[in-house]
Amino acid sequence: MRLQRRLRSLPLQQVQITDRFWGRYQRLLAATTLDIQYRQCVETGRIEHFRSVARGEQGTFKGRYFNDSDVYKWIEAGSFLLAALGSDAELAGALDRLSGQLDDTIEAIASAQAPDGYLDTFFQLQHPDMRWRNLGAMHEMYCMGHLLEAAAAHFGATGKRTLLDVGIRVADHVASLFGPDRRKGYCGHEEFEIGLLRLADAVRPSDPDSADRYVDLARWMVDERGSRPSPFEAELQDEEAMKLSPWLRNMLAPGGVYKADYCQDHARIREAPEVVGHAVRAMYLLAAATEAFEDRDDTEMESAIERLWLDLTQKRMYLTGGIGPSGHNEGFVADYHLPNRTAYAETCAAVGLVFWSHRLAQATFDGEYVDVMERALYNGALAGISLAGDRFFYENPLESAGDHHRQAWFDCACCPPNIARLIASLGAYVVGRTEDALAIQIPCACRVETAFGGTPVRVTVESEFPWSGEVRVTVDASAPVSFELAIRIPGWCGDVETEFDGVEAEYRDGYVIFATTWSGRQTLRLDFEMEPRWWVSHFQVLDNCGRTALTRGPLVYCLEEVDLASSVARFAVDPTSAEVEAFDGGLLEGVTPIRVEGWIDQPGAWPDELYSAEEDLPAATPVRTRMVPYYAWDARAAGSMQVWLRRP
Amino acid sequence: MRLQRRLRSLPLQQVQITDRFWGRYQRLLAATTLDIQYRQCVETGRIEHFRSVARGEQGTFKGRYFNDSDVYKWIEAGSFLLAALGSDAELAGALDRLSGQLDDTIEAIASAQAPDGYLDTFFQLQHPDMRWRNLGAMHEMYCMGHLLEAAAAHFGATGKRTLLDVGIRVADHVASLFGPDRRKGYCGHEEFEIGLLRLADAVRPSDPDSADRYVDLARWMVDERGSRPSPFEAELQDEEAMKLSPWLRNMLAPGGVYKADYCQDHARIREAPEVVGHAVRAMYLLAAATEAFEDRDDTEMESAIERLWLDLTQKRMYLTGGIGPSGHNEGFVADYHLPNRTAYAETCAAVGLVFWSHRLAQATFDGEYVDVMERALYNGALAGISLAGDRFFYENPLESAGDHHRQAWFDCACCPPNIARLIASLGAYVVGRTEDALAIQIPCACRVETAFGGTPVRVTVESEFPWSGEVRVTVDASAPVSFELAIRIPGWCGDVETEFDGVEAEYRDGYVIFATTWSGRQTLRLDFEMEPRWWVSHFQVLDNCGRTALTRGPLVYCLEEVDLASSVARFAVDPTSAEVEAFDGGLLEGVTPIRVEGWIDQPGAWPDELYSAEEDLPAATPVRTRMVPYYAWDARAAGSMQVWLRRP
Repeated sequence: MRLQRRLRSLPLQQVQITDRFWGRYQRLLAATTLDIQYRQCVETGRIEHFRSVARGEQGTFKGRYFNDSDVYKWIEAGSFLLAALGSDAELAGALDRLSGQLDDTIEAIASAQAPDGYLDTFFQLQHPDMRWRNLGAMHEMYCMGHLLEAAAAHFGATGKRTLLDVGIRVADHVASLFGPDRRKGYCGHEEFEIGLLRLADAVRPSDPDSADRYVDLARWMVDERGSRPSPFEAELQDEEAMKLSPWLRNMLAPGGVYKADYCQDHARIREAPEVVGHAVRAMYLLAAATEAFEDRDDTEMESAIERLWLDLTQKRMYLTGGIGPSGHNEGFVADYHLPNRTAYAETCAAVGLVFWSHRLAQATFDGEYVDVMERALYNGALAGISLAGDRFFYENPLESAGDHHRQAWFDCACCPPNIARLIASLGAYVVGRTEDALAIQIPCACRVETAFGGTPVRVTVESEFPWSGEVRVTVDASAPVSFELAIRIPGWCGDVETEFDGVEAEYRDGYVIFATTWSGRQTLRLDFEMEPRWWVSHFQVLDNCGRTALTRGPLVYCLEEVDLASSVARFAVDPTSAEVEAFDGGLLEGVTPIRVEGWIDQPGAWPDELYSAEEDLPAATPVRTRMVPYYAWDARAAGSMQVWLRRP
Repeated sequence: MRLQRRLRSLPLQQVQITDRFWGRYQRLLAATTLDIQYRQCVETGRIEHFRSVARGEQGTFKGRYFNDSDVYKWIEAGSFLLAALGSDAELAGALDRLSGQLDDTIEAIASAQAPDGYLDTFFQLQHPDMRWRNLGAMHEMYCMGHLLEAAAAHFGATGKRTLLDVGIRVADHVASLFGPDRRKGYCGHEEFEIGLLRLADAVRPSDPDSADRYVDLARWMVDERGSRPSPFEAELQDEEAMKLSPWLRNMLAPGGVYKADYCQDHARIREAPEVVGHAVRAMYLLAAATEAFEDRDDTEMESAIERLWLDLTQKRMYLTGGIGPSGHNEGFVADYHLPNRTAYAETCAAVGLVFWSHRLAQATFDGEYVDVMERALYNGALAGISLAGDRFFYENPLESAGDHHRQAWFDCACCPPNIARLIASLGAYVVGRTEDALAIQIPCACRVETAFGGTPVRVTVESEFPWSGEVRVTVDASAPVSFELAIRIPGWCGDVETEFDGVEAEYRDGYVIFATTWSGRQTLRLDFEMEPRWWVSHFQVLDNCGRTALTRGPLVYCLEEVDLASSVARFAVDPTSAEVEAFDGGLLEGVTPIRVEGWIDQPGAWPDELYSAEEDLPAATPVRTRMVPYYAWDARAAGSMQVWLRRP
C-alpha cells in the first residue's frame, strides 16, 4: 500500500446531501441535536468555564478535566452544518440560532486564551502551575487538538477568523514547547495531530510555511510515539502530577507498572505488530499518521500502517464496524475477541474508524477502504444517535438483554458531538476528487458543484440508498470537459449493472470508471445487486460460533424482541430464509425490513435445568419474524436484541 | 424444602480417606501445600503482624487489610489435616512440622489480642482509633470469623484451648457490641456468621448457653442483613472511614450511589428474588443462613432459601459448579450470563458453593444437593490447586486462549488456603450420619469408625471413584446392630445395580437405603452407570449456543491444545463420539481420558476475512483427539482449552 495525496474532499458547500436517509439526519442536527448539545454544554458549565477564566477566577471548574473538548466538537459540528446546509431556506431560523450560539461561544473561548497562547480551562481554573506535567493522563493537547479542528471548520464555513486565530496561537504555543529540537512530548490521548493537519489545511492558502510546520509537527508526534525514553513513563515519578487523575494513573500503570499499550506508547507505529489499547486513541493516531505520511515515500511506515489495518479489519472489528470490545480499557483485548453482549464498541471508536478508513481511501483511491468506512458509518457509528436525534449510545453492543438504552447526555460526553460532527460533514465522505477525477465513494443522493480545468460541472446522484442499489448519476457540464467519473462498487455487491451509452466502463481498485469528455447533460445508471446475505464469523471468533448474521447492502440487520414478541434468545434462524419486504415509511423513520423464518423455543417446553442431554430437548415451533437495521434498534418497546442469531 | 438438623458430619478422626484420588491430594497438603502456604504467610509478613501488635508497634502493617484471614484459614486447614491424617505414620515428620508451625502461629495470635477481646492486626497497627467504623468495606468481622473457624478446628483436632479461648473472647467482644439489643451491624463480607456456628459446635459440650448465644447472633446477622436502615449505607457519610478503602468504597457506592447488591444488602434473604453480588459473600451468607435456620420451622425463610438455590443452580451456575462470572464484582451479573473465556468463577466461590450445598444436603438428607456439591468439588473447586499442590487458580475460566495459568500465591490470597481447608476436611463431606443412619454421600474410598447405640461399627468403602462407578461397601459390626445404610445415587447416574443379599433396597430422596440389623461382616456392591454424556445448555445461555460439553461421572472434561496439537478453537466435535479409554496412571497423576472424534479447520484453508458467506467456507478435516478432566488442565504444555466445544 502506498500513501499518496490522491482523493481530497470537496468543501462542504460544494456537496449538497439530498439523500432522504442522511438528509433527514442533517436536518435533525439543525432542528434538534445541536441545540440540545449546546444547552448541555451551557447547563453543565462547559461554556461558562471559558468566561470564568476570563474573569480571573480560580477553583471554579466542574466536571471532567477534558470537558473543553465537547464544546470544541460541538463548534466543529455546528460549523460543518452551516457549510453543508447554509443554502437551505427552510432551516434558516435554526441555522441563524446556531450561528449566534457559535459566535457567542467562540467569543468566550477567545477571551480565555492566556497571553502565551495556552488554553485549557481545567488547568487555568484549577491548577495553573501544573501545565504540561502530566501529558499521559491530562488531555491538554487532546482538548487543544479539538480546538484546532473547530477553528478550521468555523473558518471554512464562515470565513470568520476569531477561532482560527485562537487556534494558530495555541498551535504556535505548543510548537514552541514540543518538537524535534525541543521537549519530547505529545498527548496521552491522540488528537492534537489531527488538529494540526486541519489547521494546516486552513492556513495553507495564506501561510504555506506555517502549514508545513504544523504538518511536520504532527508527523513528528505520530512517529516519535512509542520510542524510548517514553515521556509518559517518566511522568509516573512525578507524584504531584499523578494526583491529577488517580483513575487514569491506575489505567496507565496498574500496580505501578507502566502499561504502555493503553495509549499506543508500547512501540512506534513502525514496529507495532497489532492495534492495541484504547480504541479511539488508536484510530485518531492512525488517521493522523496515514495523512501525515502521504507522499513521503516512507515504505516502512506504509507497510506498518497496512499491517495495522489488516490486523484491525481481519481480527478485531465487529460486523458493525464497531471496535474495542472491552469497557475496561475502552479498547482492544486480543485477536478474535469480539463478545457481543459486553461489546463496548464506543460510538467514538466507530467514528474514529470512519476517519482512518476515509484517510486511507483518500490516500489510495481504493474502494476496499470505503467498504470499511461505509460499514462503520451506517452501523457502528450511526447507532450512536437516536432516530429522533436526541439521545445517544456510548456503548454499542451487538446483543442486549433489553437493558441497554440511549441516554440524553453523559458525564463523559465525547460521543454525542462526535457523531454529530460526522453526520454534519458527510459531504466530505461520500465524494472526493483529484485534479482530473470525481469519485462517488458512497452512492447516496447528493448534488456536487465543482469544476475541472475551470469548467463548472454539476454531478447529481439520485438513489434511495441504502434501501435500493439503483443509482442514477447525471453530469451537467456547461462546456465540454474531460474528467474521470469513478463510482465505487461496494464490496457487498455481487454484481453491478451499468447503463451508459457514452463510453465503455473501466474497472480499477473497486471503482467503475467512466473516462470521457462530458458535455451538456449525460446520465448513467447503475444497479448494485443488493441481496440479503447471511454471514458467519471466522472460526476463531468463539462468541459467534453457531451463529449467523444478516446484512443487506451496507446495513447490518438485527432482531428485536418487539418483532418476535418473545426474548430473541429463544429464536433460531433458518439461514436459507430472508425475504426483503417493501420499504415501510412508517417504521423507524423509514426502513426496509427483512422477513426471516426460524424456530422459537416455547418457554414452557424447556426443562428448568441449566444443562440437559441433547436428546431430552423439546422440538421448537416454526415462526416467522422480521429483522430491522441495527442502527435503528432500541427505538420501540425496550427488549432484547441480537445481531448474531442462533442457527438450529 | 424444610431445614432440619438431619445429617451431621462425623469428627474427621473417624473418617479416614483411603481414596487414591483424594488421598493423594491430602498427602500433598501435608508434604507440600501447607508448608508452602505457611512460608508465604511468614514471608509476606502476615504472621509477623501479630507479633508486631504484641510489641506495641504502630504503622508497620503491610499488604491487604484482610491478610489476617489467610493465616486463620491456613490454621484451619492444618488442623483439619492433623485430625484427618494424624494416624498416618508415613507423614509423621511432615505433620510434626505442621503441628509446630500451628502452635507457634497460634501463640503469636494469642499475644496480639487486645484486653477487650478485639483482634485485627490491620486496625491495631494502622488505625487503632478507627475500629468498627467501616463495617461495609473493612472486613474486621470477616477476619474474626475465620479466626473462630480456625479456633474450632484446632480445638477439634488437638484438644488445645489456646486459640479456642482467643476465639471465645473475640466472639464475646463482638456480641457485646452488636446484636438485637445493641448496635445493628454485621460485616460487608459475610463469614463471621459461619465462624459463630463453628464456635458454637466447639463449646456446646462444655457451655451450651454460650453455644446458643453464638447461634442466635449468627441467625440475627443473616436475618437482619438487607433490612433498612442499612448500616453500610449510613457509613458512606463517614468520609474519614471511607478513606480506609477507596477501592471498595467505589465498589459499594459507584458514583456515590449505594449499590447494595454487591454485599447482599439489597434485600433481606426472605425477600431476595435472586442470588446477586459478590459470589463468595453470597455463598457464605446462604451457608450460614441454611444452618442457622435448621429446626426453626420458619417456612418463609425456608422458601426463600429454596428460591435462591433454584435461581443459582438453574440460571447462574457453570457446568463446573463455578459461580460468579464477572471479575468486576467477583460475582453475579444476570440470569444465564455465563461467558466461558472471561468466567471469573473464583475458586473461593466454588468452595463456598460446596459449603452451602453441603449444609442443604445435611439439612434435608436429599441427594440432589449432593449432586451440586460434588459438581463444584470435583471441578470448579479442585481446579483451583495444581496437581503438584504448589500452584493455584484464583479464576477458573471454562475456556482459555492459553494465557491463563496457576500462580504460586496472590496478593489477595484467599483461594489457596480455602481449597486447602476443603480438601483437608473432605471426610466431613463424603459421609454423614443421623442417630440411626449412616449416609455415604460421595462413594470415594474411605473407612468410617462410628457407633450406633453404643455398638462400634466400621464401614469401609472401596472404589476407584471418580474413574469407576463400581463401589463395594463393607460393614463390620462387633455385635448385631440396627441402622440404615444410605448410599447416594448420583444425579449423573442413569442406572444403578445393587448386589446385597441381606435386605431389599429402598429408594428415597436420591439415596438407596439398606435398613437391617447388621452383624459380623457384610458386603454390598453397587455399580453406578458411568457413561460419557454430552450436554447442551439452556437456550438462554447464549455463550454456549452451538456448543456441547462432555462429562463422565462427576467429572467435567475439557479439550486441551496439547492433545489436539492445534488451537482448540479450530476443532468441532462429533457429539455422537466418546470412547472411554483405559485409566492412564502416567497421565496427569492418573486419569481416564475419553477419545472423541470431530473435524479440524486447517489454518491455511480459512479465508483471511473475519466474516464470510457460509457457502464460501472450506471443508474441515476429520480428526481424533482425547479429552481430559477439567480439574487437571494447565498441567502440561501451555495452550488453549475449552470445556464447551463447537458442534459442526
